Amino acid sequence: MNIKTLRVSPPYRELRDLAAGASTDDAALRESVAGILRDVADRGDAALLEYTARFDRFDAGDAAGLRIGADALARAAAEVDPALLDSLRRAAENVRAFHEKQREHGYLDVEADGSLLGQRVAPLRRVGIYVPGGRAAYPSSVLMNAIPASVAGVDEIAMVTPTPDGEVLPVVLAAAHVAGVTEVLRIGGAQAVGALAYGTESIGRVDKIVGPGNKWVAEAKRQVFGRVDIDMVAGPSEILVIADDAADPVHVAADMIGQAEHDPDAIAWLVTTSAALAEAVPAALEELLARNPRRDVARAALRDWGAIILVDDLEQAAEVADLRAPEHLELLVREPLALAGRIRNAGAIFLGANSPEPMGDYFAGPNHVLPTGGSARFASPLGVYDFVKRTSLIGLSAARLLRDAPHVIRLAESEGLFGHAEAVRVRTER
Amino acid sequence: MNIKTLRVSPPYRELRDLAAGASTDDAALRESVAGILRDVADRGDAALLEYTARFDRFDAGDAAGLRIGADALARAAAEVDPALLDSLRRAAENVRAFHEKQREHGYLDVEADGSLLGQRVAPLRRVGIYVPGGRAAYPSSVLMNAIPASVAGVDEIAMVTPTPDGEVLPVVLAAAHVAGVTEVLRIGGAQAVGALAYGTESIGRVDKIVGPGNKWVAEAKRQVFGRVDIDMVAGPSEILVIADDAADPVHVAADMIGQAEHDPDAIAWLVTTSAALAEAVPAALEELLARNPRRDVARAALRDWGAIILVDDLEQAAEVADLRAPEHLELLVREPLALAGRIRNAGAIFLGANSPEPMGDYFAGPNHVLPTGGSARFASPLGVYDFVKRTSLIGLSAARLLRDAPHVIRLAESEGLFGHAEAVRVRTER
Repeated sequence: MNIKTLRVSPPYRELRDLAAGASTDDAALRESVAGILRDVADRGDAALLEYTARFDRFDAGDAAGLRIGADALARAAAEVDPALLDSLRRAAENVRAFHEKQREHGYLDVEADGSLLGQRVAPLRRVGIYVPGGRAAYPSSVLMNAIPASVAGVDEIAMVTPTPDGEVLPVVLAAAHVAGVTEVLRIGGAQAVGALAYGTESIGRVDKIVGPGNKWVAEAKRQVFGRVDIDMVAGPSEILVIADDAADPVHVAADMIGQAEHDPDAIAWLVTTSAALAEAVPAALEELLARNPRRDVARAALRDWGAIILVDDLEQAAEVADLRAPEHLELLVREPLALAGRIRNAGAIFLGANSPEPMGDYFAGPNHVLPTGGSARFASPLGVYDFVKRTSLIGLSAARLLRDAPHVIRLAESEGLFGHAEAVRVRTER
Repeated sequence: MNIKTLRVSPPYRELRDLAAGASTDDAALRESVAGILRDVADRGDAALLEYTARFDRFDAGDAAGLRIGADALARAAAEVDPALLDSLRRAAENVRAFHEKQREHGYLDVEADGSLLGQRVAPLRRVGIYVPGGRAAYPSSVLMNAIPASVAGVDEIAMVTPTPDGEVLPVVLAAAHVAGVTEVLRIGGAQAVGALAYGTESIGRVDKIVGPGNKWVAEAKRQVFGRVDIDMVAGPSEILVIADDAADPVHVAADMIGQAEHDPDAIAWLVTTSAALAEAVPAALEELLARNPRRDVARAALRDWGAIILVDDLEQAAEVADLRAPEHLELLVREPLALAGRIRNAGAIFLGANSPEPMGDYFAGPNHVLPTGGSARFASPLGVYDFVKRTSLIGLSAARLLRDAPHVIRLAESEGLFGHAEAVRVRTER
């Protein structure tokens, strides 16, 4: 098995290089995406229909032909294998229950002098969810992106998904139905992002766009950011497994392959205190790869980006995890909760041998859209908090205005903002 | 007084054009900033010292010379006019008290079968706060950017501020002292953003950069976004005043000028149901401008971007506000709280005649860093929530794993992810 093994110690310089990744600036991509966005902004539905015919080989006829109605979603659900639909529904219930706990409430406090100070929390009005088409169409991704918006109380959840050659997977439509999507549009690529960001004659512009996509979609999201909100542009998926000598090498290997099979750029690291485990894992990887139909992808990812990293103790393992800030962190150790308390940076932490990452990907309830590329240092799983916005409320009493006016006038004048001071004076000095 | 007056009605097309703004893509700026960032990433302190000598005409000697120690901050506070320092301290107390209410708590629920599901909320470790130098150095901005980070529990709050010709305002250092800044660096521009994003030999890299800046700073923040988090890139400041026939035209005019004096691009709109008010405001603007030392700036802003907008009723006024999604919204009407309930999009809402916007800018407690350019549709005031990140915690019991395994295996296989299914199987089928 071709995978790097290395021993590290503080300050872990060798890992900084290993984790650096390649940052690419593709000017041709940027230009091409900017052109498509401009065209959709200028020509609306006509441009959208043309790009869809060209890139997806799908001729919708007219704008109405780009829409899949609510009845068609319900019908799609009826076409899906009932056992699979049942699993999807149960997954959706768990995801909804977990996200319900993220609902936030505003506050409006009445002070002793009658002043009101508060903060209102309100859902976004309309959001767009990008769902890749073809083979990368994952129903679980529909649930994970749409349900937090639905729990937040977003009025309109518009899902866009390309339908190459007119094909669309019933299970994806069924997931949209289960997740509370209010509108499905058969568009994809930069042109779909443009339609959501600018609106067209037939499609209302949204407040936020979320969901994974290829490099055109990612670049388009980057370019419309500011005009609408976006979620993070995701990098390759990652797992970091911390294991001690009690861990089963087969568990470790299976979890690394589960990550590596996503993509040749996926990243799977084992960090362990056990030399015996470090020695046993490559053989276990080999054995499991032999029966994985995606073995070529997984093998390439493990060879190029995988690592087995030996450390002296779990304290060092925690330091490595904090440095890497992985999307997924598994703790296959005797006392996972104690170790979790020592690690600050991770998107999701999986505690112990009974919590392999796919249980979280599909079913447990927490979101599987997680910060990648070290951004767990500052970013969070997708959640209800991503679909609300806050507004401050300030209602002062006459007494409070009079009491605080001298301070405000002094501060404003110290900054040279005479008009600010004057707006207070015209109320207190006349 | 040169200001547009117009009557509008649904669907308010004329306002869409008025609010469009100019989107600029400056390739030369982009290249120049990218070069500075690359240089700081490659050469660290040496590059930083050179750019600081060149752009700020400040020769720090060595990296240590770029630092202002904690003792110097305390000394600066002693140099400030005691009345001003007292006002700053009281403002800081109010801001702290308001933001304390934004603290969030995680949860960790133990389910009946012993499974743990939860979400941890943790502060970012280190953040950078950009404070413009020279005349644009606003102590209130130091408070508003640093205090939410301090309340969130951020370990290290590094403030960067250029000191042109070596000059630094004691009041800005005093504000840093009061706000809980842990480190002050005499650097600015794209080079300061680069130092915070990449780190240098003497400066640790941060997790997030916030604070206002000129176009070089804004472009640099845009370019490092992803590697570190950033706050929104702010556009020109805006106010929208909704007033009925009970409003005092002098209040309205003073509040519009308070906004307009910021910048020739600042935006001040009055939306009113009262033709009499619409007629009285221009004269009041003229009178107040005559005694404002920043009258040229304010006059240009009112001429180019100001508007007095007549509507039929407050329902239409609310619709205009939602369409514009203003940074600041003042409700100078008889029942401001009732009207606030009908408006969804605004950064901060000021309720009634006793709450002129500068009371919120400086003193009331809510943050003055607010979403501009219509982004109040989806963005929030700067808050404690901007300085924390969340981590999901998933610890399943053996019973839960066994119960849910068939669903997870089915879902994973339906997406073609055999390795995901296998990671569950190796735990349940052996």
